[in-house]
Amino acid sequence: MITSNQNAKIKLVRQLQESSRAREQEKAFVIEGVRLAEEALASRWPVDFVLYTEELSERGQAVLEAFIQAGAPAEETTPSVLRSASNTQTPQGLLAVLQQATLPIPNTLNFLILLDGLRDPGNLGTILRCASAAGVQAVGITPGSVDAFSPKVLRAGMGAHFHLPVLELDWEGIAQLVRQHHLKVFLAAAGQGKPCFEQDLAQPLALIIGGEAAGASQEAYRLAQTPLHIPMPGQAESLNAASAAAVLIFEVVRQRLT
Amino acid sequence: MITSNQNAKIKLVRQLQESSRAREQEKAFVIEGVRLAEEALASRWPVDFVLYTEELSERGQAVLEAFIQAGAPAEETTPSVLRSASNTQTPQGLLAVLQQATLPIPNTLNFLILLDGLRDPGNLGTILRCASAAGVQAVGITPGSVDAFSPKVLRAGMGAHFHLPVLELDWEGIAQLVRQHHLKVFLAAAGQGKPCFEQDLAQPLALIIGGEAAGASQEAYRLAQTPLHIPMPGQAESLNAASAAAVLIFEVVRQRLT
Repeated sequence: MITSNQNAKIKLVRQLQESSRAREQEKAFVIEGVRLAEEALASRWPVDFVLYTEELSERGQAVLEAFIQAGAPAEETTPSVLRSASNTQTPQGLLAVLQQATLPIPNTLNFLILLDGLRDPGNLGTILRCASAAGVQAVGITPGSVDAFSPKVLRAGMGAHFHLPVLELDWEGIAQLVRQHHLKVFLAAAGQGKPCFEQDLAQPLALIIGGEAAGASQEAYRLAQTPLHIPMPGQAESLNAASAAAVLIFEVVRQRLT
Repeated sequence: MITSNQNAKIKLVRQLQESSRAREQEKAFVIEGVRLAEEALASRWPVDFVLYTEELSERGQAVLEAFIQAGAPAEETTPSVLRSASNTQTPQGLLAVLQQATLPIPNTLNFLILLDGLRDPGNLGTILRCASAAGVQAVGITPGSVDAFSPKVLRAGMGAHFHLPVLELDWEGIAQLVRQHHLKVFLAAAGQGKPCFEQDLAQPLALIIGGEAAGASQEAYRLAQTPLHIPMPGQAESLNAASAAAVLIFEVVRQRLT
């Protein structure tokens, strides 16, 4: 039983929660709560260790036992110690340190989303959740975006991280991926190109969505063959990045279904 | 110059920021920052008073002068006093108390969004912004939803409140509006009814979107004639409420454009 806030594991968890550099160095990240733990378990994600408290619900107990059966080291802590390492306001008595890993990209890649300079963790997590629901095959995240494995992104992602390859790529890596899979590259840009509804989005494609403040970068414009926009007949001239992503991602789904 | 945190106006602002009951009693709400002030000004929204500091930018100065020319009382405060009444981390030296008012509903209403039990202020604001961009004519918010004039909703709305009628309605009021304008009522519900892409959304309609946790209420199901869903070919089985709203709202736009 861990009873001290100064325990080495607790200190590590705190670092991994707070710092993307620590996540990079340790090649690990933290998930909290029963729901995310269930998703990690179902995907057989590699686990470093699990921490739990007596406050764990029955559903949480089941996940914990499954982790232990799968060979993950698990240790009990006092509720106050776990709270000291928690990033949520109401910890559910379960927290796991997972290893950084990247799910494999499908051999026939035809639906790639590229997020360029996204800064808001809630937006990024929401887009990952949306992409996972839509059957996007991989999401590439460019340098200068928020870390996809930060606590807020994981929370908003609702488990998407465990189904969807999330790749942190530089522009050369992106260009290579695009060439290899013969993807047509579209770029969402207010008022530019044709309306998204008039583009052929059934073909194998990569779709670039820019960040909240600056929009897409110069590198994005260099790579993209075709700008497109969401028609906005109303009075506001822009959408939140996650809303724009949702509209475009499901326009691809619509065109491929019909 | 207001120099005390205990000044009556400062106290009022703090109450209006923190409490939806205070907003209801005073029939007023607070906006912060230059962008929202510009939108309020452009819409000739009724202003109670404006507070500003010497930290105001040039663009902010212009808005302040326009407010004063339009007859709004304005008073300078010290930066620390304004900070004590601010809900943002980096106040821009401009804050206004506005009167509660409801923009008129168009005579020929054919695009109404109903938000049923939405709890997250960021989601509500994001949906209002999206609705305003899409040309939604009014948004009705049911009892049990978050207050549409709370600081976070206003911030995420990015000025939508000043273009789009936002109505806090009970179910009887909603039913009346629907009858009066002969709207077909659709309800978004995972896995129910036809895919949204196969419904006729070009006809005059109201679309009900349920809350994050519980989904749509019994009253919503009673009012709605037709459930519909967003097809999700991927692995996640649900979307964030604001993502779902974006997809459905712009599916209406698409069908009406083409």
